[in-house]
Amino acid sequence: MIKKYQKDFSYSYTTGFYPTFELIKYKKEYLKCVYVNPNAVDTEGFKKLQISIPKEKIIISENVFNKLMLKENDNVIGVFDKYNDKLDKDDNHVVLQRPSDMGNLGNIMRTMNAFSYKNLAIIVPTADIFNPKTIRASMGSIFKINIELFNSFEEYIEKYKDHTYYPFALQNSKPMQSLKNIKKPYSLLYGNEATGLDRELLNENTLKIEQADDIDSLNLTTAVAVSLYYIKNLENN
Amino acid sequence: MIKKYQKDFSYSYTTGFYPTFELIKYKKEYLKCVYVNPNAVDTEGFKKLQISIPKEKIIISENVFNKLMLKENDNVIGVFDKYNDKLDKDDNHVVLQRPSDMGNLGNIMRTMNAFSYKNLAIIVPTADIFNPKTIRASMGSIFKINIELFNSFEEYIEKYKDHTYYPFALQNSKPMQSLKNIKKPYSLLYGNEATGLDRELLNENTLKIEQADDIDSLNLTTAVAVSLYYIKNLENN
Repeated sequence: MIKKYQKDFSYSYTTGFYPTFELIKYKKEYLKCVYVNPNAVDTEGFKKLQISIPKEKIIISENVFNKLMLKENDNVIGVFDKYNDKLDKDDNHVVLQRPSDMGNLGNIMRTMNAFSYKNLAIIVPTADIFNPKTIRASMGSIFKINIELFNSFEEYIEKYKDHTYYPFALQNSKPMQSLKNIKKPYSLLYGNEATGLDRELLNENTLKIEQADDIDSLNLTTAVAVSLYYIKNLENN
Repeated sequence: MIKKYQKDFSYSYTTGFYPTFELIKYKKEYLKCVYVNPNAVDTEGFKKLQISIPKEKIIISENVFNKLMLKENDNVIGVFDKYNDKLDKDDNHVVLQRPSDMGNLGNIMRTMNAFSYKNLAIIVPTADIFNPKTIRASMGSIFKINIELFNSFEEYIEKYKDHTYYPFALQNSKPMQSLKNIKKPYSLLYGNEATGLDRELLNENTLKIEQADDIDSLNLTTAVAVSLYYIKNLENN
């Protein structure tokens, strides 16, 4: 039986039907098994599960739910082996430098998916991308996007040389609205929640989201969402 | 000494220097006192506090911090009497129908503040606007905006007759990008996190944020942020 998640495990798990079906749909090759709470065997979700994966991968057990003490009232756990992705070098990227909050990280994945961004580079250290909390906040979007970790921004840019990069920062930047077209493939860079982007990553493309004069008025998730929406529409116009 | 917050209290409190200074700046008349942890009396924040409010309102005490068991490592608590606001009838409004999550609610206040929306109508039931978690998530923005609660949308629209209202929903709606100008004063309507807006509130102005075909791809906070940014810029153009 699986144990309560720890970062150094070689596996992790989804909680709830929706993220579990995303796992099955997009990363089936890493799926180990799905635990189902006996009180959920009469649900539509369980029926769908039975036609989605081999019978021997479904384990009906109450114990595991008691043991993991899930906060939400979830009746399904999808266990999978952790895996590594590579980014699509011809597509646009989102780059996060040292994101520290699992909720933010998951939410950013969800937003990326909503606005059709499929490639996420992360400069470590990072909040654990595979923690069940991150997966939960992503609503399973984690399985639909490519995520690649880098030790430094230099390592990233060395590998993806052809990308034009646009850092986001409040200082020494121009309003995002002044950007009327964008060179593809591009990378959008966002810094840590508390400290922002390292100064040496700022360049002549640095953008800011116009906002009231408050130090702390947009959180990271919001800043990413607003800018992805704006830039995706710029690209489409 | 104050007790751990409960919804029926006539008072609530901020935690941390930043939200506490926002309270002092914008709602000083409701401030009762500020508790300071003895280990914070050498900080810049404490010095600033001493010149911001009368001496007798500052209470240095370790007990209250132990008793409230704050999650964050906060050294300041600003206690205030709950109050009622009225909305500015000539200004634009954000309207939330039955928001259920305190984190979302606080974050929406923070985003409103960033994009200069100063009036929030809430159709009850609602997540507690004065819970310290909501205040925390708002980073003190709660004190800079007017918030008014209504029993029904009818009650709201009866009182603010001159507003043109724009509901947000995925069904029976036109893309937000097709909106090229907006009639002021306007109200932007958003539904509950799980159930969306009541169907009878949808009208010919109903808007959707263009996104990938996923039921659950934008969370409420994100949807509000993206649309406030778009519409504020539309207004400014």
